[in-house]
Order: sequence, then structure tokens, then C-alpha cells
Amino acid sequence: MKKRVPRSLLLFLCFSLLFSQLLWTGAAPAQTTGKVQNVILLIPDGMSVDGTTLARWYNGGTPLAMDEMACGLVKTYSSDAAIADSAPAGSAFATGYKSHTGYVATLPEVADMPGLDPIKDEDRNKPVATILEAAKLSGKATGIISTSEIMHATPADFTSHSPSRKNYDDLSEQQVYNGIDVVLGAGWDFLEGTKRDDQTDLISVIKDKGYDYVTTPQELQASMSDKIWGLFAPEALSYDMDRNPAEQPGLAQMTQKAIEVLSRDKDGFFLMVEGSKVDWAAHANDPVGIISDILAFDQAVKVSLDFAKKNQNTVVISVTDHGNGGLTIGDTGTNSTYDKEPLSTFISPLKKATLTGEGLESKLNGDRSNVVEVMSQYYGINDLTADEIQAIKQAEAGSLNYTVGPMISKRAHLGWTTGGHTGEDVVLYEYAPNKVERLTGVIENTDVAKHMEEVMGLNLNNANKKLFVDADAAFEQIGATTELKDTGNNNLVLVVTKGETTLELPVNTNIAKINGETVELEGVIVHSSNRTFVPQAAVNLIQ
Amino acid sequence: MKKRVPRSLLLFLCFSLLFSQLLWTGAAPAQTTGKVQNVILLIPDGMSVDGTTLARWYNGGTPLAMDEMACGLVKTYSSDAAIADSAPAGSAFATGYKSHTGYVATLPEVADMPGLDPIKDEDRNKPVATILEAAKLSGKATGIISTSEIMHATPADFTSHSPSRKNYDDLSEQQVYNGIDVVLGAGWDFLEGTKRDDQTDLISVIKDKGYDYVTTPQELQASMSDKIWGLFAPEALSYDMDRNPAEQPGLAQMTQKAIEVLSRDKDGFFLMVEGSKVDWAAHANDPVGIISDILAFDQAVKVSLDFAKKNQNTVVISVTDHGNGGLTIGDTGTNSTYDKEPLSTFISPLKKATLTGEGLESKLNGDRSNVVEVMSQYYGINDLTADEIQAIKQAEAGSLNYTVGPMISKRAHLGWTTGGHTGEDVVLYEYAPNKVERLTGVIENTDVAKHMEEVMGLNLNNANKKLFVDADAAFEQIGATTELKDTGNNNLVLVVTKGETTLELPVNTNIAKINGETVELEGVIVHSSNRTFVPQAAVNLIQ
Repeated sequence: MKKRVPRSLLLFLCFSLLFSQLLWTGAAPAQTTGKVQNVILLIPDGMSVDGTTLARWYNGGTPLAMDEMACGLVKTYSSDAAIADSAPAGSAFATGYKSHTGYVATLPEVADMPGLDPIKDEDRNKPVATILEAAKLSGKATGIISTSEIMHATPADFTSHSPSRKNYDDLSEQQVYNGIDVVLGAGWDFLEGTKRDDQTDLISVIKDKGYDYVTTPQELQASMSDKIWGLFAPEALSYDMDRNPAEQPGLAQMTQKAIEVLSRDKDGFFLMVEGSKVDWAAHANDPVGIISDILAFDQAVKVSLDFAKKNQNTVVISVTDHGNGGLTIGDTGTNSTYDKEPLSTFISPLKKATLTGEGLESKLNGDRSNVVEVMSQYYGINDLTADEIQAIKQAEAGSLNYTVGPMISKRAHLGWTTGGHTGEDVVLYEYAPNKVERLTGVIENTDVAKHMEEVMGLNLNNANKKLFVDADAAFEQIGATTELKDTGNNNLVLVVTKGETTLELPVNTNIAKINGETVELEGVIVHSSNRTFVPQAAVNLIQ
Repeated sequence: MKKRVPRSLLLFLCFSLLFSQLLWTGAAPAQTTGKVQNVILLIPDGMSVDGTTLARWYNGGTPLAMDEMACGLVKTYSSDAAIADSAPAGSAFATGYKSHTGYVATLPEVADMPGLDPIKDEDRNKPVATILEAAKLSGKATGIISTSEIMHATPADFTSHSPSRKNYDDLSEQQVYNGIDVVLGAGWDFLEGTKRDDQTDLISVIKDKGYDYVTTPQELQASMSDKIWGLFAPEALSYDMDRNPAEQPGLAQMTQKAIEVLSRDKDGFFLMVEGSKVDWAAHANDPVGIISDILAFDQAVKVSLDFAKKNQNTVVISVTDHGNGGLTIGDTGTNSTYDKEPLSTFISPLKKATLTGEGLESKLNGDRSNVVEVMSQYYGINDLTADEIQAIKQAEAGSLNYTVGPMISKRAHLGWTTGGHTGEDVVLYEYAPNKVERLTGVIENTDVAKHMEEVMGLNLNNANKKLFVDADAAFEQIGATTELKDTGNNNLVLVVTKGETTLELPVNTNIAKINGETVELEGVIVHSSNRTFVPQAAVNLIQ
């Protein structure tokens, strides 16, 4: 249900917007014409080329849907580290800017990697527009899908802004107020008022904003709405192999539905789809989880590719944000036998596993006295050592994949180098209709954003000018005063006063209250490192 | 110096060739027109995407020459194994056929990987024509370059045939007789008569065949010949970082010279360049060797690319044959700090090393009492543990890189999974003028051969028919008898008799002696698994 906005205010807002645009560019906006209407960006978080090769063999060698799209490599480093964290790596895809470890669609504190310009003082920790936000400004429909909670780094990168990816309260509140048309994934625990520091119940806000809020695959399938917010688990979704299809939709199913909904928009759409838990399996060195979620991800690529090939007005890009785990087919056990090992050496042990390490945990009884039986039944492992049994019994709750992943890896002669991310270039996959020249060569992750901007005819720079104005400076310039008030539970509101007029701008929302009247802004209000950034339209309200 | 061939025999040979061609195709040969004259194929053996990323950072982040060429991925598996050995992996590039572990340009004994047709009985262990041989048949100039001994698997794959890559005597003899125009690399120890089982001095043969045989960079540079055979070390060349430029040319220098010589041929040329020791460093888990030889390899790519861009009639392909080592930027020491590590964590320890592990070995004195000093001086490592000092002292001669590689890796937080090859898809790099559509997507390694065949307008199938005829069957069909004689030291000669005519065909040569008169054939005689294969032209001699 939308709040009603008075006609006079709407007219004022329109005029203000027009004026502000002329003011910035000195001319009509240099909006380029898009070559395609739609972009679907699919991110298999933490995927490696070894993972795709392994998943393909697991499937009998049949090409993956993404195979035909491979066209280059992407450099993943962030502004301050050779090995990227998902937050700046996804932000680079989303915004076209390298950023800092932990930063979500926010310019970095430091940019000291070779070849980068140092960050200007005034740009430090400033929120920066995403391709999703720019698409929305241009009238396109937008969507995000993830198998993690939707406020996790990668989906957050496209829809919210903070120097801290851990700041779930702020990130999720911005997501709810950022006008996304379709949000599918998980994480209702982070939206319910009783579980949030700010006590705000965002589920209610979602419903109030007119979303069809769905929590089962059946509800998702049945929804006829153009605005859907679907969450199917309290935190992350299950790995695809462990998933109960009655309770959780698959990534391909969510992608299919999102495309169906978004493609109704005559202006086109931008959709980001994340296979989030490929990364989590890599952290755990769990090859079963890797295969499970790469294959599920690939099905989402297939759905996107099928649509794009038919539609001929859509670019599909698939690219991971960074490597993780250092998985290889071959380990120290194959140092001298690698070229004499049949394929079954690597695949047969994996084929016996019917659950990921995470799924397996639910099969253990309370005192974990059934380790031997469970490992035999679900992993086909009948030669557990006493140490291995002990390790499984003692594995921390919620972390069994970290224990059994290496056990099955050893039996399948799969190597790992680390439990963390890795720094190699990653594979770029792109499908484009003939009129678009695909990316190729070894590119920067930021080039992905620039390419999407170009093919959709968007302008990220203009979006930045529209969406993120330093409030104190802007309001001061027009003779207004500002004060940031905490209205309780860390709910901040920027209060602007000029003469008789009072403008209230609740942080993390797109709401402006001018003398008590509510106006919806075209972007969210962001408080970052002691500065508040507001859409230019908010400034114009008081001008 | 060429042996003189009587005019009558030459006329006979010409007629026979013409006839045989008509016989096989039933029409004029379906020779397609090439889109380009030249192909340069560069193989960085055992290179991984992590190695290129690391080498780029070592160089300050400047793009590698090959970066702009990245355009897809290549599947590396062989006919019988998920993880390829160099012999079948290089053979796939050379011939368009998947083959068996250890097999050099020879059809496999077994083809049981998913999706492969089973090998026919009559095709088992049959030599198969290479792109270099097909290029030569079409009148193009040909060359091979390696930093290993030139009879090592990869260069052998393009120029010789055997079910065993270890069979250096046969492989090298075939190379000498296979009419290659430029051969640059190393390995004179395997060509000198006193060091060969067959006692044949191939250095003399090389000189007799009219090659300018050179052994120093100066001689190489000075050579004005169209046929150069340059060997610069008894076995392999040094790693580039350890190389004495007065004694050994660099890979780029050899590539430059080869292009200069081969490009004089108006019919165009095919050149294969291998950076052989990237693979050896990976086996040893020596990151310094990896960086050394990837950067040297990249310089050879640059030389090739510069020529191709100017020439606009040349395709340049760079692709490794398989992964090796499982190198990653990041290891178990960065499990939880990876995104907080500055670039220097990974690069500074490497920058202190001024020699590879192999080069370092020559700095140790006889009793290895100077380990601490040497490691300090050449590796900047001043914190060796007692165990590490002991390990260096006890390292097997010729294998120090296997000991110090892991030591510097640990300090640079570089991970490794194995001392053997790995099974992941590898990166495809191609430069082509506009008239050629580059390879893209995830392709088979055999597609590289097919692409080269297409762009040069060659026909590998016809080359097979011309070069490898089962001698016993072919001669029997025309009423001749055959006998394989060992003339001493395992020097085999196929002796064919029909009426008054005796034809002698010394195995591994391109020589036919008909009633004592010598004729040079267009390909080599190969004995493989109890069968002898000869060029059709040899059969025609007696027809």
C-alpha cells in the first residue's frame, strides 16, 4: 500500500528534479541509448575453474550451460588487498569502483594497490551508485536473488551502502526502502523487529510497500504481483543437494520467476543472481557442496541464457567475485600417478555422497553416536579412522562441512590450499546478442559495471550525482541547518530546518517528511562515517 | 649438404605422388584456402591462471602481453585420464586427436574417457599427422622452440611419433629427418652418437642435411641460413632468471629469430614455441621458477603478437597443455586474514629471490656448509629453521628447487596442492586478424588443432593418408614382401622386395633406398607396436 503524496508536492518534486539535472550537466543529460534492454548478472560466489571442471565431470562430462559463454578473465583485487573479500569484489561489479575490504557499494578509505588513483578526501567512505540503482532511475525493473540471506555482501552490494558488510541492520533496511521489484532468497531473521537492534519490523514495511511477501515455493509460483519479496529460510537457504523442494525453491526456479516478473516492464530490467554458497563450501573445503551449488547455479545460467537467446535484447554475464579454497583435481596422493588415474578416482567417492557436509549434520543424533552409520549411509565411507570418527563427534555445531569436506576430498584426491579466498584471475562468461561486443581479454572487475552501464545505456556518474549528495554541505549552501537525531535504538533521522520548513530524513529509508507530509525519494538516505548522504531530490524539497 | 637424387627417380616420384593423390580422394584434393598464412602456437607448459596473476603482480601489475588475448577455456583431459600428461595433451594440440598418457602424436591404445569414441583396432598405436607436418606438406616453413631438450614431450608432439615419450632415441631421430626448418632449444646430449643407444651421431646428420648448427646466442644471431638447428645446452636450458645470456638465448630471442627466418617463406609458416620449464617449476612447487619462466614466455608472446599485429596474416595462440601444482595466492596461513593482507605479503619474499631453486644449487659449495649464507644472499631468507637447513643440505643433487620452493612459498603465503599435474580447464589466449573468428567458450584441446588446420587451409586427414600407411599391408597388396631387419644397435630397416627391386626404409628417417639409390620422402618412417608406417610415396616407389 503506497502512502498518498499531495499533488502540489509531486509537481514541486518534478520541477526540482528537472532543475537539478540541468544544473549539474549544464545541458540535457547525456543519456546514451542502450544496445539491449536487459542485463542478467549471475555471480557464483567464490567459484574456481577447478570447481566447474569437477562439476562437469560429476555430471558425466556434459557441457555446463555457462561453458559456451567463457570469453576472458577478470582481475579481482580490491582497493587495498590482492585477495578480495566479497564486499568490495561485488561492489566493483555493481559500481565500477574498486573498494576496500568489507565495504558495500561505498568508496574506499584507502586505495593503495598498484595502478589505482589515491582516494580523494571528500570521496572516502562515500556511498556510490550501483548498476541496479542506475537501472531503476532509468525506469527499468530490478531484482536480486541469492541463496544466502539477502543482506549478505554480494546482494547487498547492488542494493545498499555501508563501509561494513557486517552492518546487517542498515543494509537490510536500505534494501527494503530501495524500490527493488523482486527480491528472492533468505534471511527473515534479520528483518523481524524482535531480532533487530533497531527494533524495526521490516517484514511489515515490505508488506506495507505493496510487495507480495512469500515464504514457500508454492506461494512464489502462484504470485501474480509485479513486486515480490520472497524469503524461504530464516538465514541462508540450504545447499541445493540438501534442499527440500517443498520448503525452498531452487536458484533456477527463483531466476525463472524473477525473469517472468521483471520482463513485464517495457523499459527492460536488471537482475542479479548469486549462487552464494559455492563460496561457503569452498571455505569449508567441501567438494560436495561446491558441486551441488555450481550445478544449481548453472541451471540458473541456463534459464537466463534460454531467455536471452529467445529475447535477443538481453546480455547475460556470469562471473565469480574471487577464488576460494584452491581446489584442484589431483592432490599430494597423485604426485606421481596423476596421469594414470582413471576419472573414477576423482568422481566415484563424490558420487556416493548424497548430502553436503552441512546436510549431513542433521542426520547425526544428539550424542553423535551414529557417526559410523551416517557416514556409511550418506557418504559411502566405510573406512573411517578412529581420528576421523572423533573429529566428526567433536565438530562444532553448524560446521560439520569443515570436518567431512576434507575427509571426502582426501578419498577423491582433491587438493585444497586454504580455507580462505585466493587471488587468481577468474573466468568471465558472457552471452550477448550480435549487436553487442562481448567483453574479452583480462579485464578489471570494475569493467563489468562499465560494460553493463554501456549496454543498457545507463549513466552511473549521473546516478551518483542524483543519489548521494553530502547533506550537511548541500543544505548549508541553501541556508538550511541540519541535525542528526537518534530517535531511539540507533534509528537516526537527519532533521533539516529552514525558516518555517522542517524536513525529516530517516536514515536507511527513501522517505522524506516535509512539514509532516511524506514524500518517497528515488534513493535511500545513507549515513556513512559521520556524514549523511541524501538524494538531490531531498535537497530540492527545501530549496 | 643434400644427397643428389637422379632425375629419373624424381620424375617417377612426382608421378607416383600425383597418382596416389587421385587414387585416395577420387578427385582433385579438397584443399581449402587458408584465411591466414601463419600460425604461431605458444605453449607455457603446466601454467595456471594463478601463475599468470602472480607473475603480473611480481611485475608491478602491468598487463602481460598475453592478457589481451584471453578468450576462453580449454579442456585438457587425455583419452584415458582426467589429468593429462604433456605427451597426449600436446598431441591433442598437434594432431586433433585425444591420446594416451605417454603417447607422442600417436593414436591411443585406449579411449575410455566420457564422450570419446572407442579406438578402432586398426588405429591403435598408429602415428598421426601433426599440424607442423601438414603445414610442411602444404609448402609452409616450420619451426619448433623449447627451453627443454627439444625431444621432450611437447616439442616432440609436433615433430615425431611414438607410444612412449621416453623413447628419446626414436623421437629425436625422427625430428632430425622430419624436414623442420628451424629447431631451437637444448639437448645435444641426446643427439651425440656416443650417448645414444643406436650409436647414431645425429649432430653430423643435422649438419649434413644443410642446417646451420649453432650453439651460442651470437651464432644464432649471426646465422643467415633458412635452416637453423640451435642447441644451447646439453639437456634443458636454464630457467630464464638463472640464464647466462652469453651462453643461452632467451625464449623471446629465439622466437624473434625463428619468425625472422620462417617469415621469408612466401607460403607462410607454422611455429610452435614452448616455455617448457613453467611445468618443471610447478612440479617442484617453486614460485620463483614459475614467475621467471612465465615472464620469459610472455616476452615470446609479445614478440609473436608484435609480428602478427603488423603482419595481419598471422594467428597467435597461447595455451597451456594442463595445470600443475595447484598454486594459489593465499594459503592456510591466510585462512582468516586473506582480505587484510597487503600485496607485499605475497610479493616481497619473492622479490628477494634472485635465482630459482635450480639456480641456487650452483651457489652451494661441495659440502653445503654455506646454506645459511647462500639463502641469505640469494633469497633474503634469514630465519631458516634447523630443519630447513638440514633439508637443504640433504636435498638430492639436481632437486634443490623441490626443497627451497616450498620454503619461499610458505614465506610468501602461496599454497600448493600437489607435485603433479592437475585436471582443471586452462585459459585459451588467441590473437587473430579481423578476417578470422577466434576460438571462444570452453573447447576441447583437440579443437586447437582443428582451428589451426582451418585458418591455414590445411587438411590433417589428407596428411595422415599421405604420411602414415601401414607398410606390411600396403606392400603386400602390390605383391611385395617386407622384412624388418635390425642392422645393429636397434637400428631398424624395413626391407621391401618385389622381383628385382629392393627398397630399404630405415626407421625414424625420411630416407628410401631403391636399389641402392637414395630418395628423400616427405615424411618419416615410424615403427610403432610391431607395425611400420611409411609415407604413401614410399609405397609408390615400388608400385
